[in-house]
Amino acid sequence: MPLDVYRAPAFNPDDEGLLALDIPTVVEWLTDFVYDEMVRRRGIQRAVIGLSGGVDSAVSTYLAVRALGAENVHAIRMPYRISSRESLDHARMVVDDLGIPERTISITGMVDGYLAEEPDTPAHRLGNVCARSRMIVLFDQSAKLGALPIGTGNKSERLLGYYTWHADDSPPINPLGDLFKTQVWDLARALGVPSQIVEKPATADLAQGQTDEGDFGITYHRADRILHFLTRGYPPRKVVELGFPESEVEIVWKRLAGSHWKRRPPTVAMLSNSAIGEYYLRPVDY
Amino acid sequence: MPLDVYRAPAFNPDDEGLLALDIPTVVEWLTDFVYDEMVRRRGIQRAVIGLSGGVDSAVSTYLAVRALGAENVHAIRMPYRISSRESLDHARMVVDDLGIPERTISITGMVDGYLAEEPDTPAHRLGNVCARSRMIVLFDQSAKLGALPIGTGNKSERLLGYYTWHADDSPPINPLGDLFKTQVWDLARALGVPSQIVEKPATADLAQGQTDEGDFGITYHRADRILHFLTRGYPPRKVVELGFPESEVEIVWKRLAGSHWKRRPPTVAMLSNSAIGEYYLRPVDY
Repeated sequence: MPLDVYRAPAFNPDDEGLLALDIPTVVEWLTDFVYDEMVRRRGIQRAVIGLSGGVDSAVSTYLAVRALGAENVHAIRMPYRISSRESLDHARMVVDDLGIPERTISITGMVDGYLAEEPDTPAHRLGNVCARSRMIVLFDQSAKLGALPIGTGNKSERLLGYYTWHADDSPPINPLGDLFKTQVWDLARALGVPSQIVEKPATADLAQGQTDEGDFGITYHRADRILHFLTRGYPPRKVVELGFPESEVEIVWKRLAGSHWKRRPPTVAMLSNSAIGEYYLRPVDY
Repeated sequence: MPLDVYRAPAFNPDDEGLLALDIPTVVEWLTDFVYDEMVRRRGIQRAVIGLSGGVDSAVSTYLAVRALGAENVHAIRMPYRISSRESLDHARMVVDDLGIPERTISITGMVDGYLAEEPDTPAHRLGNVCARSRMIVLFDQSAKLGALPIGTGNKSERLLGYYTWHADDSPPINPLGDLFKTQVWDLARALGVPSQIVEKPATADLAQGQTDEGDFGITYHRADRILHFLTRGYPPRKVVELGFPESEVEIVWKRLAGSHWKRRPPTVAMLSNSAIGEYYLRPVDY
């Protein structure tokens, strides 16, 4: 949809059709994506997925099983000592429903090994240490199994910067990264993800009772719609004119504008006319 | 230098002038780079650098001190129980020479916390676990200090894929990433890095007696020159025609071609016309 620079169109901010997916096509395309990126392009049959008990990793796992077969999708549960029992149980539901190999590897030893050096680490830093420790486990287990980790980050959290850099965004292949959270929920229902997982509030599971929407101060339903327009070049004022509350547009805009750095590679000082990623742009070939 | 598609020019593969730097200009530009990226662009005065005892992290530290002042550059030594004593001592030389704040944080607890779950981890996987554990420490200490980690990876290791993904390449700012290893050595001498650090063989310090050049089967002196031409679009055959041994060109070409994936962001399935990094290309603004 091109940006209308002249006037705001008549619009209902809660229009249910706005982000509606053609689900069968999306399922087919994402299944093909996983197969093509893993098997055709890299010659790798096996995937490793960190199953958190949430909907994103569940959907990624259902897609991976369609693409690679149940025996080739290795689920890893990685609880920390304060992780909720419910999260572990929900991850187990996915394992049982799909009949995939599973292993539970506690990150408590790793994380507490660091806390022994840095005892007063506050919760927000601890969350990042946990997320990055899980990345280490996923990559190491992948190396062990001759597999690749599959990412589970969705477009909403990527645009809102609501994830740990070099952790959730680290797997080389990500099937959900261009789907808003509300679209992931739609996809989850269509794929048969257990309803307890789809219907519960989204949470990073870093503290008791924490929810994503509580942290944001806005629902995914509204945030996704606002992001839809902001990422198409609509300035915040224009999104307000469409009928979205100014306070909500501001919440989303601030997170979006403040997290561009997390979606870019590190900045390297250029000194030559063969700087990597600037002049030297070889495509990936496997 | 444009690629000459007609014939190989007369050339001496060991020409000392080929990669020679204008050192004063490079020092000035890299000092400005660190200041501009940290202070002007992000408003952050403090840097955290993981001091390994090797030349890359030493040079990065000398540059950071020029840009930010000694009191703003926090060195972190992160030994694992099998790290060499010499590495720790060499890191200490840099700290003493520059008079910068330093802290030593062992990663043994973190890494062995993982090994308790995965006891038979072989050395090549252990090396990656260590490198990523150090990344966790650097980012967490940066969060604690209101600082940013500064990267220390050089162009040779980036092009040869000789580093751990989501570890050595993770800091948001990297002053050395467009300098070959032999150029980093030249820069180190000019900056006054202690000669013990500059003259010793480069090593990842993952095993006793391990050296980079031993792992490669070629010296940095030759690898850098071969990379110089390959990254300008010369096909391997053409580089051989320039006078480089075919076996050495093959070693370098294989590592270069086999590591493109490490220099690219993860692959995300595109489903919309606002896919992040594809259509949605907002510049970083701080």
